Amino acid sequence: MLLGQRDIIDVTFFRNFLSSIADAGRELLEGRQGRTGKPADMRSLCSDLITQKGEALGTALACAVVDAYGEFDESEKVAFFEMLLTDFDVDRDALADAIATYQKSQDPTSAQAVGWAAESLRQRVIRGMNMAPNGTRMVINMREDLLRFLKDKPALKPVDSDFAHLLASWFNRGFLEIRRIDWSTPANVLEKLIEYEAVHEIRDWDDLRRRLDSDRRCYAFFHPGLPDEPLIFVEVALVRGLAGSVQALLDDTAERIAPKKADTAIFYSISNCQKGLRGISFGNFLIKQVVAELRKELPNLNAFSTLSPVPGFRRWLERRRDDASLLNPEFFKMLDDPNWGHDAVKSEALRQPVMELCAAYLVNEKVKNRPLDGVAKFHLGNGARLERINWMGDVSAKGIEESATVLVNYKYDLAKIESNHEAFANDGTVMHSKQVETLLESARALTTT
Amino acid sequence: MLLGQRDIIDVTFFRNFLSSIADAGRELLEGRQGRTGKPADMRSLCSDLITQKGEALGTALACAVVDAYGEFDESEKVAFFEMLLTDFDVDRDALADAIATYQKSQDPTSAQAVGWAAESLRQRVIRGMNMAPNGTRMVINMREDLLRFLKDKPALKPVDSDFAHLLASWFNRGFLEIRRIDWSTPANVLEKLIEYEAVHEIRDWDDLRRRLDSDRRCYAFFHPGLPDEPLIFVEVALVRGLAGSVQALLDDTAERIAPKKADTAIFYSISNCQKGLRGISFGNFLIKQVVAELRKELPNLNAFSTLSPVPGFRRWLERRRDDASLLNPEFFKMLDDPNWGHDAVKSEALRQPVMELCAAYLVNEKVKNRPLDGVAKFHLGNGARLERINWMGDVSAKGIEESATVLVNYKYDLAKIESNHEAFANDGTVMHSKQVETLLESARALTTT
Amino acid sequence: MLLGQRDIIDVTFFRNFLSSIADAGRELLEGRQGRTGKPADMRSLCSDLITQKGEALGTALACAVVDAYGEFDESEKVAFFEMLLTDFDVDRDALADAIATYQKSQDPTSAQAVGWAAESLRQRVIRGMNMAPNGTRMVINMREDLLRFLKDKPALKPVDSDFAHLLASWFNRGFLEIRRIDWSTPANVLEKLIEYEAVHEIRDWDDLRRRLDSDRRCYAFFHPGLPDEPLIFVEVALVRGLAGSVQALLDDTAERIAPKKADTAIFYSISNCQKGLRGISFGNFLIKQVVAELRKELPNLNAFSTLSPVPGFRRWLERRRDDASLLNPEFFKMLDDPNWGHDAVKSEALRQPVMELCAAYLVNEKVKNRPLDGVAKFHLGNGARLERINWMGDVSAKGIEESATVLVNYKYDLAKIESNHEAFANDGTVMHSKQVETLLESARALTTT
Amino acid sequence: MLLGQRDIIDVTFFRNFLSSIADAGRELLEGRQGRTGKPADMRSLCSDLITQKGEALGTALACAVVDAYGEFDESEKVAFFEMLLTDFDVDRDALADAIATYQKSQDPTSAQAVGWAAESLRQRVIRGMNMAPNGTRMVINMREDLLRFLKDKPALKPVDSDFAHLLASWFNRGFLEIRRIDWSTPANVLEKLIEYEAVHEIRDWDDLRRRLDSDRRCYAFFHPGLPDEPLIFVEVALVRGLAGSVQALLDDTAERIAPKKADTAIFYSISNCQKGLRGISFGNFLIKQVVAELRKELPNLNAFSTLSPVPGFRRWLERRRDDASLLNPEFFKMLDDPNWGHDAVKSEALRQPVMELCAAYLVNEKVKNRPLDGVAKFHLGNGARLERINWMGDVSAKGIEESATVLVNYKYDLAKIESNHEAFANDGTVMHSKQVETLLESARALTTT
Repeated sequence: MLLGQRDIIDVTFFRNFLSSIADAGRELLEGRQGRTGKPADMRSLCSDLITQKGEALGTALACAVVDAYGEFDESEKVAFFEMLLTDFDVDRDALADAIATYQKSQDPTSAQAVGWAAESLRQRVIRGMNMAPNGTRMVINMREDLLRFLKDKPALKPVDSDFAHLLASWFNRGFLEIRRIDWSTPANVLEKLIEYEAVHEIRDWDDLRRRLDSDRRCYAFFHPGLPDEPLIFVEVALVRGLAGSVQALLDDTAERIAPKKADTAIFYSISNCQKGLRGISFGNFLIKQVVAELRKELPNLNAFSTLSPVPGFRRWLERRRDDASLLNPEFFKMLDDPNWGHDAVKSEALRQPVMELCAAYLVNEKVKNRPLDGVAKFHLGNGARLERINWMGDVSAKGIEESATVLVNYKYDLAKIESNHEAFANDGTVMHSKQVETLLESARALTTT
Repeated sequence: MLLGQRDIIDVTFFRNFLSSIADAGRELLEGRQGRTGKPADMRSLCSDLITQKGEALGTALACAVVDAYGEFDESEKVAFFEMLLTDFDVDRDALADAIATYQKSQDPTSAQAVGWAAESLRQRVIRGMNMAPNGTRMVINMREDLLRFLKDKPALKPVDSDFAHLLASWFNRGFLEIRRIDWSTPANVLEKLIEYEAVHEIRDWDDLRRRLDSDRRCYAFFHPGLPDEPLIFVEVALVRGLAGSVQALLDDTAERIAPKKADTAIFYSISNCQKGLRGISFGNFLIKQVVAELRKELPNLNAFSTLSPVPGFRRWLERRRDDASLLNPEFFKMLDDPNWGHDAVKSEALRQPVMELCAAYLVNEKVKNRPLDGVAKFHLGNGARLERINWMGDVSAKGIEESATVLVNYKYDLAKIESNHEAFANDGTVMHSKQVETLLESARALTTT
Repeated sequence: MLLGQRDIIDVTFFRNFLSSIADAGRELLEGRQGRTGKPADMRSLCSDLITQKGEALGTALACAVVDAYGEFDESEKVAFFEMLLTDFDVDRDALADAIATYQKSQDPTSAQAVGWAAESLRQRVIRGMNMAPNGTRMVINMREDLLRFLKDKPALKPVDSDFAHLLASWFNRGFLEIRRIDWSTPANVLEKLIEYEAVHEIRDWDDLRRRLDSDRRCYAFFHPGLPDEPLIFVEVALVRGLAGSVQALLDDTAERIAPKKADTAIFYSISNCQKGLRGISFGNFLIKQVVAELRKELPNLNAFSTLSPVPGFRRWLERRRDDASLLNPEFFKMLDDPNWGHDAVKSEALRQPVMELCAAYLVNEKVKNRPLDGVAKFHLGNGARLERINWMGDVSAKGIEESATVLVNYKYDLAKIESNHEAFANDGTVMHSKQVETLLESARALTTT
Repeated sequence: MLLGQRDIIDVTFFRNFLSSIADAGRELLEGRQGRTGKPADMRSLCSDLITQKGEALGTALACAVVDAYGEFDESEKVAFFEMLLTDFDVDRDALADAIATYQKSQDPTSAQAVGWAAESLRQRVIRGMNMAPNGTRMVINMREDLLRFLKDKPALKPVDSDFAHLLASWFNRGFLEIRRIDWSTPANVLEKLIEYEAVHEIRDWDDLRRRLDSDRRCYAFFHPGLPDEPLIFVEVALVRGLAGSVQALLDDTAERIAPKKADTAIFYSISNCQKGLRGISFGNFLIKQVVAELRKELPNLNAFSTLSPVPGFRRWLERRRDDASLLNPEFFKMLDDPNWGHDAVKSEALRQPVMELCAAYLVNEKVKNRPLDGVAKFHLGNGARLERINWMGDVSAKGIEESATVLVNYKYDLAKIESNHEAFANDGTVMHSKQVETLLESARALTTT
């Protein structure tokens, strides 16, 4: 369909608006400082922000807070969060009153009142700061700082919870925008892909360009409050047949396939970009959305599958080292050779047992009835099924070290997502293919021999 | 400055995304219905939405809920809200536990836990619905329905509070975009101005065009979740000197002034567009933002003032009818004549006492130390000052009936907003001009005579 | 497919650029006028524009020329064109030399040199004026003026030929952009549709909105030099079965059909918007382009047809009034009754002979082996075929007067466009349907009886 | 000012349109080939394109021609251009007739008719090809090929003249768009900067990023027919005081200056991007346009100057080697040492004579009263003045070899452009600064001693 101008929103006004707000704010606060003779301090700025003055001075106060934070060094930042913890906590008297009322009346309104009363003042401070130009960016940056401090200052956890709560509300999936990323995407967005790629490092602009070629797709979620910042992105290769090796996928010299001739989309990498949004998950939405997009663009595709690492496999294997009954004693000896990947004999000897053990690891090893392996838990929880285990899937140093070269395909079939998910959610069942079942049977034979 | 492509975001992908999500959803749920043999009912859909299934089925469930609501008649809608009230209220046991823990430990974490526990399940349902394509639009529509039902069903108040709470969070000022509206704005946006103008009705497209002419400005806030829907808009006239009459401003035959020659911006109308966002205020931000924009665009402007109605004035006056000591007995007799506006003698006789009484009404009549008049309370609370009271400012039937033709200028001076606000906030002081002071003095003489 | 930012071009820079160019120009020429003491006159401005000074002063001179023209009254405009005719004609000496050289050498280069030498100086003036901000707009406006003057001043024809030649080159179909027009198109574009609709008048914004409804399509060509100005637009109705009556199509109360359920696209109106581009035809490209667009958007469509007037039919009929042998003498008597359309008996009596005569008129009446009827000539020349003749197709006063209510469907079948066109181009054959053939046979019987 | 949606045009429709046109074309021509049994050959395609069939088959034929060319190897391309030369030349009979008529009548119309008759058929072929999707791109590519062939096939010159003539008309400055290029420009545009930079090579993406930093500006002209292709771009550095060394400018480690604190804009590089547009000059327009843009964005700038090479200086110097009377015999000996740049004594000894000779070269050395040096001729012809000659301005190998390290500042002062230009145009006067005058005087002393 043709597009008219209607489909377009200009983000320029937003930037203009930000800068004029900032100007207005500066003006307002110059007045303020003129009167007091010294810059208002952070505590009083935050206090003003959440009282009626916030209404009157609007974004100007928010700017002041955010600007001040931007000038802070590490210890001042910690002090700021500690101030939020102690001075902007819940109003205990009000909460006690609300609880008392609720305990008497037990009605929905008084229950709700308990909720409002239990909301800390710092939540209102955070909401206030978001009004600043670039406020959303700053709130996310603050949380990134805070997560760093948390390790040494676990007492700040409640502050983090408040940040996380508000960010989760603002970054509701209904506000996210999916965009295709390609070689005509602005460079300032592309450089973030290079920076944030977490699974298979992007070496340079040439490597990036290969990943955005005609037989590739890359999609990201964006939020309107951060127009140039991808939140999460997924990289897809269009191929014929399932792909089992990431080195083959990333090989720049490989022939390109015409997208119309591909039958399979391989999701070979998914990376979060915002540390400050940790714990707010978008990946499950993104994958399904991209499946839907690709089905529309390329009706010739009939399989959607990941090519995923098994990050915990080798570590798990290690813990079984002494369980002599299970494995040929030669097994670990070969695995210990850092060069076994280049030794045809050893590789061949390892192939079958490693594959079988990996199947067992993914299907049977659980914690609280959920897979021990984080990646498996994510995709299976999304309703995917364990489709194929690939030998020599990732022969990089990291691939050998973490998963003995194994990569896994999880398959997304929109028509079965719900039933797969229900079997998983109710009984912990890991839906899997015939190949995996065969490996499991051999593994069982292996362990019971 | 020149703009490159970088400044632009395409909203098309968003729409495409919405429709493909919807397709994916339909597919998922067809599977679901195929299995159960009948469409899932609303309660179970909402339940699924807030459990782990919500994670797996994502936006598909949200679509199903939102679509189902769209088919409801009035009584089914009421039943839906009643279900949210009773079946998706707070988990009382969990809340009791959280309270008990808090009362023992009294620490921030357990206070916070009370807050989470006091959050009703329906808040999670509303968050879930927002994930649907057009979800934000639907949540606002639901609240508009709900506000209507509240009159007869006050017990639904807690449901409304939850809607209002989430909408206020999502429509945080930091996410709003200001856009200039003019004659090159898409017609589907412009028609909403005609529909929503609340102060001075827009008769037709010609009338609208006059209001978007070169000596006029119109700005609106938009939210990225509702790309074609203005939330609130303000209409501004660029003039020389303060304007005191709205009929003169709207006169299509009046000569246009070159914007560069104007010295004053008159804000003559501000209208909310979304009933479902009642109680979430944007007006104060919009006015200050527009002041900032105009100052940048037109440095020649040196005054920013409203031309505002005094909606409660005549009603207040009516209540003083029997206070014979205060007013000439002829006064009300003249005012009772519906045609006094066209009677030069009566008009002239009414002029002075009405102006004086209006000054007294605006400056002195208060409730809880705030002006009785809602419009005055809004602008003064924003830090404006009461600048001028205009006789024959609005000679429409409505103007005569509500305010005896009086219109008022509130002046916004960014440099004084904070001090004006503080005087108002602390002591209820209504900052005002010399003209108003003179009227007040005469009024005092009048009442003390 | 999802769209990234890449697919978008910002036209803002273009406007900014225009205004800064204008500023720069003013500055340059202020300098100029400062030195000479009086504004440079038009002849010298035009002379400078085409000499090396044009290089140095660039767009500034172009602005000066264009601005000066903008201030001209009618007689000054005529004088300007007469100056272009006489003072900026071809350089006769140079042309004579070039001819002499060519006649000696006869080689391609010297032939080309004749061409360059025969190019009038005024062509270079026009090219120069186009460099001004809004220059393309001004050149088109000038030609619109010129076409008006031509009637009284036929000697200006060579000036017009130069304008037409350059405009045809600039508005090469390769530079045109097709855009869909709908209710979310900017109002300043939509108002031009109301202004320019030439076939079936658009009464007001409600009428326009009906024509942009979900079961309608409207497309226009734009040129990048005139971003807000449609050049030509076509209005399409999506229907089931061929439509034969325009009043039925424009009826606001008629039920809307879901586009996916339509099987036929009716092109019921096509209008040029720029008088200054007279003689530069886009209509044939637009129709085929829209057929291609609609086929892509709505694969359910299987017929593409116009609903066209027969503007010359009644006039042609009139000339046969005295050819008594052919027609029943009652025929014209009935037709002369201005109310025959509302007289069931007369209408019924006229129906068959009028339809037959219309078929004969369209298929057989020719000038230089091309149809006498201009609309027929246009569509048949484009490769369409004459599909159906509709009685009571247009019962407006204009429809009765011009074509005795008849409207015609010309059918576009992309697969047959070339063969239809060739039959038409080579032999003047008017491809037509069975219905038309049947009418023709009766018509022949009629005339041979 | 805020921007609404109105300011934006979507280029997506254009691409969609291109592809659907192509589809339609394929369809049309499949019909054609179906009937003839073999693909139409190039000559007949070109013939059809310029006859009435071109009207009927529109862009489809253009696609066919352009696609066919795209498949040609070098010798087929040459054959194609030779065919254009011989088979699509001027119609000699028609031209002879037109000349005869003109020689009799001598009126403007018949002069014009000579022009039309002297227009070769190949011009119409080129205009026809431009109608194809991506047609403008293809026409430019063809000319690029043609320019290459011209060296060996000078007989093709008339074909090139026709291409050049039409391209100059289409790329009229009034159709060009200026855009700022920065780090948020799409990568597919940025990579073209790396590719085309002609003056100071861009090494990699980091080098590029430095040149797009906050204290730099880059602007390019684009044409709507080539939306992603810069035609020419200029790189500007914002500095304090005149810059005399390009290595200092490109130094990544140098401190960035806040644009608001800069007083001078240095245009240090300007590069054409389209070989196929050779001879169609945009540079003079671009420079002045950028001066205008920068003055608007940064009113603090008060000087606009180039930092330009003197490419012919060393070559000219070489030719004076034997003119012993003029120079110290040691002079050339030192200059012949390839390492003199690193030898403080030699450098110091060379400094003054080289600077003086360069001044003499630039101001006095002329051909036809225009500077011998191409860069000087360009800027002086644009109305700039020769401002400063910089020693050690470019110490790269190329800088030493071409200009003995000298770089030159040409200054653009909008208020003096016209007078500078006139002095230059009329008398060949090279306007210059005091520094240059002083050098000239010493040089004169030098040569007359």
